[in-house]
Amino acid sequence: MKAIVHEGKKGLDGVTFTHMSEVEPRPGEVKVRLKAAGLNHRDLLVPNRRNDGDPPVILGSDGAGVIEVVGEGVTGIQVGDEVMINPGLGWKKNSDAPPEGFEILGFPSHGTFAESVVVPAESVVKKPGHYSWEEAAVLPLSALTAYRALFTRAKVKMGDTVLIPGIGSGVATYLLQFAKAAGAYVIVTSRSEMKLEAARRLGADRVIHTNREWDQELKGEMIDIVIESVGAATFNRSLNVLRPGGTMVTFGASAGDVVHLNIREFFYGQYNLLGSTMGSHEEFEDMVDFVQRHNMKPVLDRVFPLSSALEAFHYMNRAEQFGKIALDING
Amino acid sequence: MKAIVHEGKKGLDGVTFTHMSEVEPRPGEVKVRLKAAGLNHRDLLVPNRRNDGDPPVILGSDGAGVIEVVGEGVTGIQVGDEVMINPGLGWKKNSDAPPEGFEILGFPSHGTFAESVVVPAESVVKKPGHYSWEEAAVLPLSALTAYRALFTRAKVKMGDTVLIPGIGSGVATYLLQFAKAAGAYVIVTSRSEMKLEAARRLGADRVIHTNREWDQELKGEMIDIVIESVGAATFNRSLNVLRPGGTMVTFGASAGDVVHLNIREFFYGQYNLLGSTMGSHEEFEDMVDFVQRHNMKPVLDRVFPLSSALEAFHYMNRAEQFGKIALDING
Repeated sequence: MKAIVHEGKKGLDGVTFTHMSEVEPRPGEVKVRLKAAGLNHRDLLVPNRRNDGDPPVILGSDGAGVIEVVGEGVTGIQVGDEVMINPGLGWKKNSDAPPEGFEILGFPSHGTFAESVVVPAESVVKKPGHYSWEEAAVLPLSALTAYRALFTRAKVKMGDTVLIPGIGSGVATYLLQFAKAAGAYVIVTSRSEMKLEAARRLGADRVIHTNREWDQELKGEMIDIVIESVGAATFNRSLNVLRPGGTMVTFGASAGDVVHLNIREFFYGQYNLLGSTMGSHEEFEDMVDFVQRHNMKPVLDRVFPLSSALEAFHYMNRAEQFGKIALDING
Repeated sequence: MKAIVHEGKKGLDGVTFTHMSEVEPRPGEVKVRLKAAGLNHRDLLVPNRRNDGDPPVILGSDGAGVIEVVGEGVTGIQVGDEVMINPGLGWKKNSDAPPEGFEILGFPSHGTFAESVVVPAESVVKKPGHYSWEEAAVLPLSALTAYRALFTRAKVKMGDTVLIPGIGSGVATYLLQFAKAAGAYVIVTSRSEMKLEAARRLGADRVIHTNREWDQELKGEMIDIVIESVGAATFNRSLNVLRPGGTMVTFGASAGDVVHLNIREFFYGQYNLLGSTMGSHEEFEDMVDFVQRHNMKPVLDRVFPLSSALEAFHYMNRAEQFGKIALDING
């Protein structure tokens, strides 16, 4: 089958469009004939985490398609079912951290940038009927991450003021949609006027261009929650605008890992800094229920054919998108 | 009246044993004839925060004594009542951060290192009957800080493993006592064998000398909660031993304010970092109730006469004590 594989050389130079053997499901697994896949920042990170000469791995965490083979002992799933895949493997019940052995589909196990994928039966859920294949494919990883960050961790509630620095990434657009649906007042920042305009159309109450001194401008707002996924570039400014006793959830560091934290200011502010990544399968199901109840659709920025995945990677790397990027497996 | 005053010169050089006028209570206030006062790190910080030539201020946040004058409109308090003072002014109800205007007795308002002090009537509570004056005087600030950090913020529960880096300070000894009373397994560290021995006698389940690689030694423990008051010197080691999903409360930074935080490690660990200082009057009352229910007494390290307060300051600054340091007002 056709697949996007990382092999041979560390980094994006090792990513190729090639052929891999199909795999059949073992007991408890299912095989999904994929229709579409979704890109995540993780797909850029994995090739850099691997070494020259590592065995080939099919990249990709997000995908949607049709059940083709059902492994022994699997109940409740039938050939022909239209499904999305929860890429979090081994985290079933809600808990404050994933259990030992938790991993994400698309390394070390083969991922979704291919014509088919084999996953544990409990990792698939029914595709929302009114979603296109591309929409279903781009939901799982980032919407789950946004859901846990905003609801489980930050415990957002009606009337809260929520700041999302760096609107544009898939997960940031889900955060904006979810926070609005929860009844929050939502402020977003970006260095792009186009993204700010798009965020406003998506429901943002206040948009701020980062060429302004946004932390100074926001000093008057009582910001209850910051969902911070940019990293070092914005971390301290974000903390700086939080109201005393407020909560900052961090789940990303695309712009730098290490920050200087002034702990005296931190404890005088009675702040809460909460780390988050992904979520449990229970949270995944709650999220899918939430988006359907609120009649919400993913913001789809662009669809590339599978053969152009590398082009899609570079496009994502330039951070020009607003929303999610999908791959059409048969495109 | 005799008092320990900061004036004239920034820093400890401006601290003198001198005379100040007595003050009479306004409506809603009471005047306490002090028997004993308690030292806190704050008493070392205040003289450094003030500038040359600032007007004199009586230092001291903690104290206990006898009600001498009751201001107009005050009910439920009578002349002759034996009381302790909650030094947190203007934070009545539980909340995630103190309200605007919150301050701590002993700057900017005159404090407890004097023969008398005038405070709002709602700031005094009955002295536990079986406490000496010194014991009552050293309870309020640090026991309230420990109580909020451990119960309100970290939400310690039976069976949790709690790490207290740097045992010895007053607040650390309260933390140890409170965590044991809550049914936790408590680990403490110190660079002093004598303090570790004292901690063991006070109930610590495991004691670790910091001349060893304590973060490596503790890698096997599932540490649910770290109460971190040392600051930069231990901050990252403390975070390093926390179990995934664990909670670190920070309320002190005696060994440095600024730390390097790796946010990627932080969010992969699903950690909670919670800032805390002091507590509300509701928490104060809960704390006093808690220590009485558990028949708990403060660990009193040494008592100095008021006239030797400066000597007590230097003693505290050397961090040689195990527990609290008191001043005998009439000593």
